[in-house]
Amino acid sequence: MDPYCSICWDADKVKLLDQRRLPGEEIYLEITDYREVIEAIRTLAIRGAPAIGVAAAMGAALGALALETDNPEEFLSRFHDICQEIAQARPTAVNLFWALERVENAVRVMAGQPVKALKDRLVTEAQVMLKEDETICRRMARAGQILIHDGHRVLTHCNTGALATGGYGTALGVLRAAWEAGKRFSVWVDETRPLLQGARLTTWELGKMGIPYTLIPDGAAAALMAQGRVDLAIVGADRIAANGDVANKIGTYSVAVLARYHGIPFYVAAPLSTFDFNIPDGSHIPVEERAGEEVTVIRGMEVAPPGAPALNLAFDVTPHDLISGIITEKGIALPPYTSSIKALRRAAE
Amino acid sequence: MDPYCSICWDADKVKLLDQRRLPGEEIYLEITDYREVIEAIRTLAIRGAPAIGVAAAMGAALGALALETDNPEEFLSRFHDICQEIAQARPTAVNLFWALERVENAVRVMAGQPVKALKDRLVTEAQVMLKEDETICRRMARAGQILIHDGHRVLTHCNTGALATGGYGTALGVLRAAWEAGKRFSVWVDETRPLLQGARLTTWELGKMGIPYTLIPDGAAAALMAQGRVDLAIVGADRIAANGDVANKIGTYSVAVLARYHGIPFYVAAPLSTFDFNIPDGSHIPVEERAGEEVTVIRGMEVAPPGAPALNLAFDVTPHDLISGIITEKGIALPPYTSSIKALRRAAE
Repeated sequence: MDPYCSICWDADKVKLLDQRRLPGEEIYLEITDYREVIEAIRTLAIRGAPAIGVAAAMGAALGALALETDNPEEFLSRFHDICQEIAQARPTAVNLFWALERVENAVRVMAGQPVKALKDRLVTEAQVMLKEDETICRRMARAGQILIHDGHRVLTHCNTGALATGGYGTALGVLRAAWEAGKRFSVWVDETRPLLQGARLTTWELGKMGIPYTLIPDGAAAALMAQGRVDLAIVGADRIAANGDVANKIGTYSVAVLARYHGIPFYVAAPLSTFDFNIPDGSHIPVEERAGEEVTVIRGMEVAPPGAPALNLAFDVTPHDLISGIITEKGIALPPYTSSIKALRRAAE
Repeated sequence: MDPYCSICWDADKVKLLDQRRLPGEEIYLEITDYREVIEAIRTLAIRGAPAIGVAAAMGAALGALALETDNPEEFLSRFHDICQEIAQARPTAVNLFWALERVENAVRVMAGQPVKALKDRLVTEAQVMLKEDETICRRMARAGQILIHDGHRVLTHCNTGALATGGYGTALGVLRAAWEAGKRFSVWVDETRPLLQGARLTTWELGKMGIPYTLIPDGAAAALMAQGRVDLAIVGADRIAANGDVANKIGTYSVAVLARYHGIPFYVAAPLSTFDFNIPDGSHIPVEERAGEEVTVIRGMEVAPPGAPALNLAFDVTPHDLISGIITEKGIALPPYTSSIKALRRAAE
């Protein structure tokens, strides 16, 4: 067990570690209104595709509990509206939509049962999804850790640890499993501007795991690669298309191109809930554009002239041909991805 | 004339715009002790290779004025020690050493003249070098502006404007000359972590020139290139080897690799004082490593866990084969650089 959790369900409340305040303060929000869950997702109090999925399910459960009706049909209709509202929180991570579809399906098949039973089911389902997410992360980590060797200097971008998931982590989970298997290596942590998830969160988690790391500005990764000081890059994902194109935190594509140029393997770790089998390629992934102030203001302090125009694309898309392999809970998909991803999907069914 | 200047000489004082406080505050330091000039260079109150050269010359002049001796030999010996001390301020920008060599030569050839004459000469020489630097920048800008076309979306990294020079700027000077020639284009400004020279200084200067720009995190440049939204990249330099390898602000090499990958021209603008003709290639350029706190603490605020290890390479080296051309006051050097740089050097003699 971790000494912290990104999110959990506690006596009809959602407890959620406020990641905006890390690493300075470790404060848990206690939420009873689903609209506050939406706000928490939107403002990145909770972030990371798998964690967003769990938060959406728990938010939906909170919304369901608050519905005052004994009519199952009315309940389902109003619950659907709540799910639609939660779906608006952020556009890119597909886990959000995946989770909402799952909880809606869970009650849709319970036709005729009383509202109380539907509510109970939603509360249970959300907790099951949290637990499952951790189990899936551990499986993924076990599958991926064979890629990490003693002495490796691993580059990672953004945060993909327990904080980004229901527990254990995706890309950082792979490193954790390798560490727990006795391998000794070190990590270059991209600080990951603008919101510094690397500097604030990945360092914090690696520190707790005792894995040695060094923080770097995002622009320094290329120089380290040229100096032969990076052996492997590994990142998470927010959405993966059927052909293996990967949307992930802005700057990921940069790492992928640089890794290719320097002949360094570039891996993605993500659960199957992050795959969007319905879109043929990355051009169909909606990329969230966030407020320019996240670039011009760092933790409340202006770092650019007042009103300086800034572009803040939250994600970029890495084409599949730059990716050495995609680590999932069902094994590692290798190129050609169209067929290997299909095979993973079949294995999951 | 600019409404501001990076540095000037005013009645036996050095006046220097404190760039650490920009864009929030526009404050000029008035310095009479050469050791404060060293401190200003070291702490980046003044930065940019050409500006550092001028600051070194003015610092040397301040040091000379304070020497209390009428013996020319003793004066020259103690002046040499002062220059040696100033030379320790920062290791990478060769303009620092170039400037100190120049002022030492200026008085070394005045054998037999009284100390007063030597001091006068040093004060004059420093002011001549400031004026020359601006003239050189304007020539460089005129030579380079032909590369900029209407509608261009130009990416730049770090700060290369009047602030980084004796006036007008290097890479930003090229853009300024193009703008003054009536061309209309826009600029993507890399924020340039860790010290945010792009966010703080380049935005400030482009704003004053009225050139439209958009600030981006360094990691976003690749995605914009992939989207076809970057037509040309242009940067400055801190030292250029005889074969055209270029040391510049950390992150520059990243831009160069990404530009090559996306088929985008990548130009460097630098005066001949930034060339180190004595070293055959970039592997001989000493790259300054600065305190990790510049990465973990942003403008006084901690953004990583206390004590988080960080690597802060101030510069990286871009191999000449990634560079489309090097813009100088004597014209644009094109590959193969070994011969084109030799030709420029001859033209300058």
